[in-house]
Amino acid sequence: MISTESMQFLSAINSSLPLLATTGETADSSLVVAAVLLSLVVVYFASKLGGELSNRFGLPPVLGELVGGVVVGISVLHFLVFPETGADSSSSLIISFLKTTAGLNPDAAESVFVAQSEVISVLAELGVIILLFEIGLESNLKDLMAVGIQATIVAIVGVAVPFAAGTAGLMILFGIPAVPAIFAGAALTATSIGITSKVLSELGRLNSKEGQIILGAAVIDDVLGIIVLAVVASLAKDGAVDVGKVVYLIISASGFLLGAIALGNLFNKTFVAIVDKLKTRGELVIPAFIFAFVMAYIAAVIQLEAILGAFAAGLVLEETDKRKELQKQIVPIADMLVPIFFVTVGAKTDLSVLNPAVPTNREGLVMACFLILIAILGKLVTGFSVFGQPQINRLAIGVGMIPRGEVGLVFLGIGSSINILSKPLEAAIIMMVIITTFLAPPLLRFVFPEPTLVSPESNELLLDGSSGTSLAINSSNSESLEANPNSQEAN
Amino acid sequence: MISTESMQFLSAINSSLPLLATTGETADSSLVVAAVLLSLVVVYFASKLGGELSNRFGLPPVLGELVGGVVVGISVLHFLVFPETGADSSSSLIISFLKTTAGLNPDAAESVFVAQSEVISVLAELGVIILLFEIGLESNLKDLMAVGIQATIVAIVGVAVPFAAGTAGLMILFGIPAVPAIFAGAALTATSIGITSKVLSELGRLNSKEGQIILGAAVIDDVLGIIVLAVVASLAKDGAVDVGKVVYLIISASGFLLGAIALGNLFNKTFVAIVDKLKTRGELVIPAFIFAFVMAYIAAVIQLEAILGAFAAGLVLEETDKRKELQKQIVPIADMLVPIFFVTVGAKTDLSVLNPAVPTNREGLVMACFLILIAILGKLVTGFSVFGQPQINRLAIGVGMIPRGEVGLVFLGIGSSINILSKPLEAAIIMMVIITTFLAPPLLRFVFPEPTLVSPESNELLLDGSSGTSLAINSSNSESLEANPNSQEAN
Repeated sequence: MISTESMQFLSAINSSLPLLATTGETADSSLVVAAVLLSLVVVYFASKLGGELSNRFGLPPVLGELVGGVVVGISVLHFLVFPETGADSSSSLIISFLKTTAGLNPDAAESVFVAQSEVISVLAELGVIILLFEIGLESNLKDLMAVGIQATIVAIVGVAVPFAAGTAGLMILFGIPAVPAIFAGAALTATSIGITSKVLSELGRLNSKEGQIILGAAVIDDVLGIIVLAVVASLAKDGAVDVGKVVYLIISASGFLLGAIALGNLFNKTFVAIVDKLKTRGELVIPAFIFAFVMAYIAAVIQLEAILGAFAAGLVLEETDKRKELQKQIVPIADMLVPIFFVTVGAKTDLSVLNPAVPTNREGLVMACFLILIAILGKLVTGFSVFGQPQINRLAIGVGMIPRGEVGLVFLGIGSSINILSKPLEAAIIMMVIITTFLAPPLLRFVFPEPTLVSPESNELLLDGSSGTSLAINSSNSESLEANPNSQEAN
Repeated sequence: MISTESMQFLSAINSSLPLLATTGETADSSLVVAAVLLSLVVVYFASKLGGELSNRFGLPPVLGELVGGVVVGISVLHFLVFPETGADSSSSLIISFLKTTAGLNPDAAESVFVAQSEVISVLAELGVIILLFEIGLESNLKDLMAVGIQATIVAIVGVAVPFAAGTAGLMILFGIPAVPAIFAGAALTATSIGITSKVLSELGRLNSKEGQIILGAAVIDDVLGIIVLAVVASLAKDGAVDVGKVVYLIISASGFLLGAIALGNLFNKTFVAIVDKLKTRGELVIPAFIFAFVMAYIAAVIQLEAILGAFAAGLVLEETDKRKELQKQIVPIADMLVPIFFVTVGAKTDLSVLNPAVPTNREGLVMACFLILIAILGKLVTGFSVFGQPQINRLAIGVGMIPRGEVGLVFLGIGSSINILSKPLEAAIIMMVIITTFLAPPLLRFVFPEPTLVSPESNELLLDGSSGTSLAINSSNSESLEANPNSQEAN
């Protein structure tokens, strides 16, 4: 359809776009934009098809987004593949499509592929940062504090039990040496806040007592996981625990979370005063993002995770009069960016480790079954550690802590990088992460009864809420939004 | 604050994040995310400070965003610099800040810098794509068609007059040879749709007759500019015009725009039917983005610009019942992404070409004055080519066509790449682009009287509209949104 000459011409335009060019030497900028546009189209197709199908079957949409990601990713269709899963540009269908339709030069394919993967990965990271900011905005600090002790106990039990049982089991049953066994045990500790909070939000259970305990415990347990990681990594590297580092992490983590909350009370009024002074578009969203991104940056720099900073920022802004307005404005932004995260997680999941035809997989499968069992049981018992709450759904709390997601893979990555994990054990850890991540959404749906809350109507209510603005168009009184008691639950 | 050991530990975590890692070999992914977060904080500070100050002085906010970008960019503070403006990681204050606070290894600085620039540049491109999609959603196809003939004449006059006068003047007054003179003349042709449409939108004039003529003419003139570029580039390279290429471009451009409109009428009902079937979050935004990004991709592939595809997608969806709902949901997304484009344009603008201490600049300054004069007068006359509209503000139309923006720089880039432009002529073209881009917003503000339309209230009205949803929360009837006659104007 396009002649060679016009292709040359196109690439002449592309290679000489000084204003919009990105990395002149490495990748052709307008082709990178084209690759990103195609990737987003694939992501959105996968997330909508998966999410809608999942919803039809009464399951949380996020499960469908994850599965949709698996289908378009490295495991099945190869539309969206990433360099770190061992793929190169020749295995990416998006790059092949660009070669056919946009005259992408094969020599330039690798650099466009790397740049596209970089951009989509960062967009996915922004997506999970926005997700946690939104979750923070929907959570109430006082409610979280009210369940603080229960959440702490759930977190500690949920870290200690799988760690101890996993390590001991691997050593005793499988004869694994102590250090790799400790590493694998540590990989069983931290709950994935992203997946758990998204499912709770979709079930309309984020602000139930169970939801608050799960969320609080997931945050604490993420911090504990980072500390366990520090201990285990220094143990594996030097054969001894670096106490100074552990103390530093504990102090910086508690300092950050408590400091954010304390400063938040002072900052609240300043934030509202600034927003009220601004008169141009984005007068609420932009200051909110400045705050959220600064907090995310600080959290990342003090060796916590960026998402914890974004969550803290959301919690602080939830205390302001602007929360309802901000919640409404964040919805379409989250709708645009959050699916990129979940589809990318799915796309990067390589299901070939589940193939029993490969010998190391078979050995790994047995260990995986053991690790999965410990991963599930070790978190289920946490629900029974909650005291003073006779009415609480203990099973739901335990189930809510099951998904391991990316944190488990961080352990795997560090273990691999220092060569202390055997191939079967590596495969077993990957399988444990995959299964717990994909199992949690349907299980959570199952243990939280009253399915009406996740019915199509509740989603429609939310979406209409974010867009049906005719009657309130001239109302600048954000408090009037309080009239809708469902918005928080439905969201 | 952070010990060397914890830095090593941090980089161990970073380098082994398999799930969230991007390009393992080239750049450390979590540091890239940190760099992007910092860049966004800088972008948002610059856009809000600039935009608000500009608004206080009664000028369009976008002018302030551009100036804010200049201040944080290559010309002044060096927070946000890009490889293609000749900067490297050592001149980026964000990279220096990362070295100090996040333990960025100097060896890794260059790759993080390149990746950060890549991501911000793509986000800026997404920003202008979303902007044109939003502008399309706010424009009415029938209104545009009603002024179609006037817009076409304005576009043709606005391409022909500056091209002829610029080329002739450079040859006669400055003794420039024919081919470089033709190149510089061609750089005077195409109006920047992004800047002009944003200013019109901010002035509440997008849907005035003048606004529609300017917008229509800017779209046509962008297409004409691409054709002129094809002619001039083949002339410069081969000494002859490739007629086949020109015919191909004319056919593909008209085919795309007319085809989009024709298919749009068929696609409208399908789009609404699909959206009505979807029951999970993002049920409107995601299908709309799939459509917009596919159109942007097609436009880019047939050698038009991606933004023209997004604009056409917006125009098509404006015809559906969902337009009001979609307009509301697009607002916060645009508020988040569009400033990245304008601040980036400012940040990439190197004002050092204006320094008269450099000898080539002095020669260039004289030529620049001539080019700027032709650039302004050549577009001002277009207003007087409008016929059959006795009441029309002819001056406003001419002024609206003045900003050249990125298209002029595309000509410059191609001219540089084939070495036919002298240094002074290159500097003169850059100055012409800078001055017309920065002059147009205040001039447009000046020639459109009734300043009340750009008052703070109209912006507040818009923002409240996008978030004040309490009373309409259960209304799924998007038609009821028609009740607000101001939303289109205010936007």
